[in-house]
Amino acid sequence: MSAPVWSVDPRTGKQREQVAVEATTDEVDRVVSAAHAARGALADRTVRAALLRTAAALLDSARDVLVEAADAETALGPARLTGELARTTYQLRSFAEVVDEGGFLDIRIDHADPAQTPPWPDLRRHKVPLGVVAVYAASNFPLAFSVPGGDTASALAAGCPVVVKAHPDHPATSELAAATLRRAAERVGLPTEVIGVVHGFDAGLDLVRHPLVAAAGFTGSIRGGRALFDAAAARPVPIPFHGELGSLNPVVVTEAAAAERAEQIGAGLAGSMTLGAGQFCTKPGLVLAPAGETGDRLVTALTDAVSNTDPGVLLDHRMRDAFLAGILERAELPEVKAPVTPGAGSEHTVSAGFLTVPARLLAEEGPHDVLLEECFGPVTVVARYDGDADITAVLGRLPGNLTATVQISAAEAEAEDGRAGALLAELTPLAGRVLVNGWPTGVAVAPAQHHGGPYPATTSTSTSVGGTAVERWLRPVTYQDTPAALLPPELREDNPLGLPRRVDGVQERGSADPTG
Amino acid sequence: MSAPVWSVDPRTGKQREQVAVEATTDEVDRVVSAAHAARGALADRTVRAALLRTAAALLDSARDVLVEAADAETALGPARLTGELARTTYQLRSFAEVVDEGGFLDIRIDHADPAQTPPWPDLRRHKVPLGVVAVYAASNFPLAFSVPGGDTASALAAGCPVVVKAHPDHPATSELAAATLRRAAERVGLPTEVIGVVHGFDAGLDLVRHPLVAAAGFTGSIRGGRALFDAAAARPVPIPFHGELGSLNPVVVTEAAAAERAEQIGAGLAGSMTLGAGQFCTKPGLVLAPAGETGDRLVTALTDAVSNTDPGVLLDHRMRDAFLAGILERAELPEVKAPVTPGAGSEHTVSAGFLTVPARLLAEEGPHDVLLEECFGPVTVVARYDGDADITAVLGRLPGNLTATVQISAAEAEAEDGRAGALLAELTPLAGRVLVNGWPTGVAVAPAQHHGGPYPATTSTSTSVGGTAVERWLRPVTYQDTPAALLPPELREDNPLGLPRRVDGVQERGSADPTG
Repeated sequence: MSAPVWSVDPRTGKQREQVAVEATTDEVDRVVSAAHAARGALADRTVRAALLRTAAALLDSARDVLVEAADAETALGPARLTGELARTTYQLRSFAEVVDEGGFLDIRIDHADPAQTPPWPDLRRHKVPLGVVAVYAASNFPLAFSVPGGDTASALAAGCPVVVKAHPDHPATSELAAATLRRAAERVGLPTEVIGVVHGFDAGLDLVRHPLVAAAGFTGSIRGGRALFDAAAARPVPIPFHGELGSLNPVVVTEAAAAERAEQIGAGLAGSMTLGAGQFCTKPGLVLAPAGETGDRLVTALTDAVSNTDPGVLLDHRMRDAFLAGILERAELPEVKAPVTPGAGSEHTVSAGFLTVPARLLAEEGPHDVLLEECFGPVTVVARYDGDADITAVLGRLPGNLTATVQISAAEAEAEDGRAGALLAELTPLAGRVLVNGWPTGVAVAPAQHHGGPYPATTSTSTSVGGTAVERWLRPVTYQDTPAALLPPELREDNPLGLPRRVDGVQERGSADPTG
Repeated sequence: MSAPVWSVDPRTGKQREQVAVEATTDEVDRVVSAAHAARGALADRTVRAALLRTAAALLDSARDVLVEAADAETALGPARLTGELARTTYQLRSFAEVVDEGGFLDIRIDHADPAQTPPWPDLRRHKVPLGVVAVYAASNFPLAFSVPGGDTASALAAGCPVVVKAHPDHPATSELAAATLRRAAERVGLPTEVIGVVHGFDAGLDLVRHPLVAAAGFTGSIRGGRALFDAAAARPVPIPFHGELGSLNPVVVTEAAAAERAEQIGAGLAGSMTLGAGQFCTKPGLVLAPAGETGDRLVTALTDAVSNTDPGVLLDHRMRDAFLAGILERAELPEVKAPVTPGAGSEHTVSAGFLTVPARLLAEEGPHDVLLEECFGPVTVVARYDGDADITAVLGRLPGNLTATVQISAAEAEAEDGRAGALLAELTPLAGRVLVNGWPTGVAVAPAQHHGGPYPATTSTSTSVGGTAVERWLRPVTYQDTPAALLPPELREDNPLGLPRRVDGVQERGSADPTG
């Protein structure tokens, strides 16, 4: 008997309905094998682009039912979920444009050159899809980083079938979204098996170990992601594992910035750390603020703003328990204070808060190291520094991050060789995205975006947001001295598909290039 | 006491001289820490290009002494080694051009767009070096895939200091090359610590486990490479491990090709499999040839050519022992024949040969599976097939490869939907380079080259030859809303370095672009 999969209302902790059953090893094998068998149908770029656009249109049409289901399971609220759906369908359409443009194929052609020693043969390189991609859905984005999310969209864009391990926090939304994606596949004449969904913890392990799974994408906790990463690396044939595991997202507030606008920074920080009940992977979790009067002003402003935040519902009660336990463990450390104590709001909610600690206590290994670990939920740690040496010491002890932020003054922003430049140089090795005078929550889906960072932020050097996310699911193949009749159309001399390519070292524009 | 590192003459098995001592854990730490401390000196692209070009010039000047040392340790012969040095310095100069051109920085700029929902900030992405790269030198290329080889050149091009684990087959050559590279560093004003070398098996493990090592490149055996890959993945902070481990390099000869030119194919195969005493990672190790009369002609031609091959010296006596043991194990299998028995030529040499086997014996798991494993040295296996089903069955059982080759007839080369096209479609998933009517030995250093393939050919989706090899040592960083004064020059609006970049989705040429 397979274990039932229930949809649970986090506002009450009650089961709503049984949505599915956990997939057995055999069931995972069936779904992966079917996806693998269907992979040839995704070879045509035109069909892939149509699939992505049709999926976006059908998801938009299903907005009301998707948002209602997701809200019932996640308590994220209709406004946030409506925005998340828009982001999701925008993402699908963006990847359709990536597919149309074709630059991701990274086509390079070197004609034979008998003048080289030894002579060069004719070489023609492009990129081919890796095969079935396993996607591990995130708890905190039931749409944008789950069944119809960026990993799925980019893998389909690359020509890879997808099998999603649904997140237990939103199985009903996952089933609804999967049915919508499969309907889109049907509409464009693709086998529905190019999109599979499985439920269950063991199914997730079976999936990453399946011989026909060629790569994996993951968004979630360090513990869960590392276990799957280890399983991927331990396979007889290891596979790429692109995991986004966790991030502290440090913020450094300079003395001058605090002097200039402590109140504004305190209020901005409160907004960022409590957004979505602190359940964003980019939540600022550690803020280095000055120890003196300007820092006091910042703490006061933060206290005011956080005190005025309504209690919120976390994604599930396990997270609520972990949040409360994490707060207890941190708050009882020596010299840690809680100007606003985060904690249990009511039986099902939590209230936001923050802790302060002298930065010097984080400068060396010790019991305060737990403050350098992500605590999922509406809490941040303000570490009060006494001079630049404290900042450098703490930054030197941080793990990798998705983001790192500085808050600087107007004068510092103008000075080429000043304190701000030095800080950016210290922060760049720690993160994939560096922000000045902004807040890290909110990740624009744009070509220049990089959502990734040194481990444990990411298990690879890749991004999970933005057009380059498609690169994760491809590998190069070079054809040598291959007759025209046998070449894939992408590599033919006359470029019948109008693709951008680099021929004998010279970049040629494609027909879909905006300036072509 | 550290163990001595001896240079050994494979032509006699005798020790030539003590070159160094094996590095202790402390010594590895010292070398890696010094390389890490020196990394900032490589931030300037102009200096990196100068380093690569100066290294090439100094290596060319040291040709006689390098070739003599390498020949004394490897027995590869002056002609081959002179060619290998030319390839090595060409490679260094090619990467200098890659550095100049700057396309590898993959710069993308999206200007702020308040019309988006939510509004887009200003985002500017480029790539930054990962940090210290560990390079594991290959036995079979004492120059081109060792201390001054492609991994070193591409890592330096990316801005990463390098610590090479020298191969025990050529420690004297390694020390000479390292001294030359360090002299080049000095000439261009760089600290010599940007290039380190360590000797010893344990030092290799210490290196991949060192917290300041940020990535690794490896060329060698499946067993050694997998052990290091596993160590890299098991670190508290896992690092990218780009290993080229082993490859069977299958060749399929169609019935029509054999009918057309069996003698030419047999002679070509003999040349490719015995080149460099069969010690190339691209040696064709499995040849699918027809069972009938045309295949007999091919076997006869191969017999004639291989019989006429002089015995050769392998890189070391451990390899000679492994080769002889591998032949014994294979030759005694049922239905395996040896038209020319490979074996011991004299006390220090081996003689080339080949085995034949009915292809159907490879179609299912069984004792003949050892024939699907690489056997390093001058031997190949000709599997005689009886129809296309045999071919498909054997190809379906192959691990990943660097290369896959078809030999087809003139008529097959012209037919768009014929047998050759179907064969290419079967071979593409198996390899990183697909050849038609050529031989896989010989890897042109060209932009469109791909030297990599599905595991175990490579542990990642990357290449170790060609300009894109530089991508292995970089990660993206995006700056958000960063004032002009604080941006790296690579990302400034006025593009002071004249770099190619994609601005608001439109590709702009750089000043070093050949058509710019």
